[in-house]
Amino acid sequence: MTTSTAEQLSAVSLYERLGASAGIRRIVDGMVDAHLQNPVIRARFQPYIDDPEHVEEIKQHICTFFAVHTGGPGTYGGRSMTQTHRGMNIDAAEYMAAIDDTLATMEGLGHDQETRNEVLAILYPLKSEILHV
Amino acid sequence: MTTSTAEQLSAVSLYERLGASAGIRRIVDGMVDAHLQNPVIRARFQPYIDDPEHVEEIKQHICTFFAVHTGGPGTYGGRSMTQTHRGMNIDAAEYMAAIDDTLATMEGLGHDQETRNEVLAILYPLKSEILHV
Amino acid sequence: MTTSTAEQLSAVSLYERLGASAGIRRIVDGMVDAHLQNPVIRARFQPYIDDPEHVEEIKQHICTFFAVHTGGPGTYGGRSMTQTHRGMNIDAAEYMAAIDDTLATMEGLGHDQETRNEVLAILYPLKSEILHV
Amino acid sequence: MTTSTAEQLSAVSLYERLGASAGIRRIVDGMVDAHLQNPVIRARFQPYIDDPEHVEEIKQHICTFFAVHTGGPGTYGGRSMTQTHRGMNIDAAEYMAAIDDTLATMEGLGHDQETRNEVLAILYPLKSEILHV
Repeated sequence: MTTSTAEQLSAVSLYERLGASAGIRRIVDGMVDAHLQNPVIRARFQPYIDDPEHVEEIKQHICTFFAVHTGGPGTYGGRSMTQTHRGMNIDAAEYMAAIDDTLATMEGLGHDQETRNEVLAILYPLKSEILHV
Repeated sequence: MTTSTAEQLSAVSLYERLGASAGIRRIVDGMVDAHLQNPVIRARFQPYIDDPEHVEEIKQHICTFFAVHTGGPGTYGGRSMTQTHRGMNIDAAEYMAAIDDTLATMEGLGHDQETRNEVLAILYPLKSEILHV
Repeated sequence: MTTSTAEQLSAVSLYERLGASAGIRRIVDGMVDAHLQNPVIRARFQPYIDDPEHVEEIKQHICTFFAVHTGGPGTYGGRSMTQTHRGMNIDAAEYMAAIDDTLATMEGLGHDQETRNEVLAILYPLKSEILHV
Repeated sequence: MTTSTAEQLSAVSLYERLGASAGIRRIVDGMVDAHLQNPVIRARFQPYIDDPEHVEEIKQHICTFFAVHTGGPGTYGGRSMTQTHRGMNIDAAEYMAAIDDTLATMEGLGHDQETRNEVLAILYPLKSEILHV
């Protein structure tokens, strides 16, 4: 046995450390619920506030997205990030609010700093596909 | 003859001074064209950039809105300002950009400072029905 | 007697209608107090919150500015708008908040819509000398 | 020899991987130069544009800050992040621009994704001490 604990850890995908499908769903439930309350971005969800099916559809897209980008199974067959956010003119304050909701939800669920940093490193650069597109 | 020139002027509605239906259409054409180029807000129009019918529809709504709010004929039968902008999370920079496009178009068309100020006084307070609704 | 009431009214400067020096001071007191509470801009005043002399200095500059731009006596001998705001990177949301505080203060003091519109028409275009300079 | 390469790597501080004092200085030179060109934040530096001593002072503060927060020697004896940014009302767009300048400078200097992610994980949460304080 020559592999170290560190190497074994790195062999466990972020997807698995997030709790696989069920764990990611908990994060997405928490972050979308937070978005609906967050004064910086809740207005974006006003048209869907009484349309739980639409909110559920958004959540499923985010779950698939998370899985694909963290080493999980499946492929993301939906529209690109840019297409999804086309015409929304999302700005930096809104995107930071969305990241913050995600990281705070993860912290609330007990995910450690290291794992949150990995998610931050995935989410932050996505802004080039989301902001003002 | 006891009425003054000033009184006669005030009897001419802003709608008439804007050039009635045709004059307002020129302002709206100019401002929407400016919006499509304005880096602060053009992203909002990306989904419609190849859909001239949708842009035309937007222009007609704005024309009707201008007519109704400047003393012209007709009634605005469309959705309220708030309903129209629901979910867009429009911010102050975007709204100022839209006002600026309007005032610059008016100036380009030869409308004087006084007339532009009257339009500003109509547009500025609308922000409470448009921003972050 | 050939001059109309309207002409006589227009002969009364905005400065006088604002209540001259004392009336302007009331507006400036109210707007600066509102700024100190306004979540969008109060952070700008944090360094001076315990420095009433500095706040008083700001108020006096604004009073002089108001007087000069509304047809009152005196000349504005201070730094230009651009110089005053150089390095602050003030954005649209902050400037709209400042305008709103001013108009709300004026409304609270009983100034009518017409007078508030005249002040709006003075303040709004100043943004080119204040925002992101 | 039981320690793995991964463990040895983690024993090398981020400070060392950034190139210690000289390497950090190159990053700070690049990021501040980028700030001076960045349309989102360059206005903040306008008052110092002809004051290289002040810019140098800012750079030295940032160098010390980087060293202390990446495992390097020394202690940060300056004012707190909050005190430094008090009254500036820095917003999300400005902070993201500053992060982007830093990450782009690091990429230009050849720092790998992993190292840039570590710096992102340090810079991102600092916003609570910098934005709107």
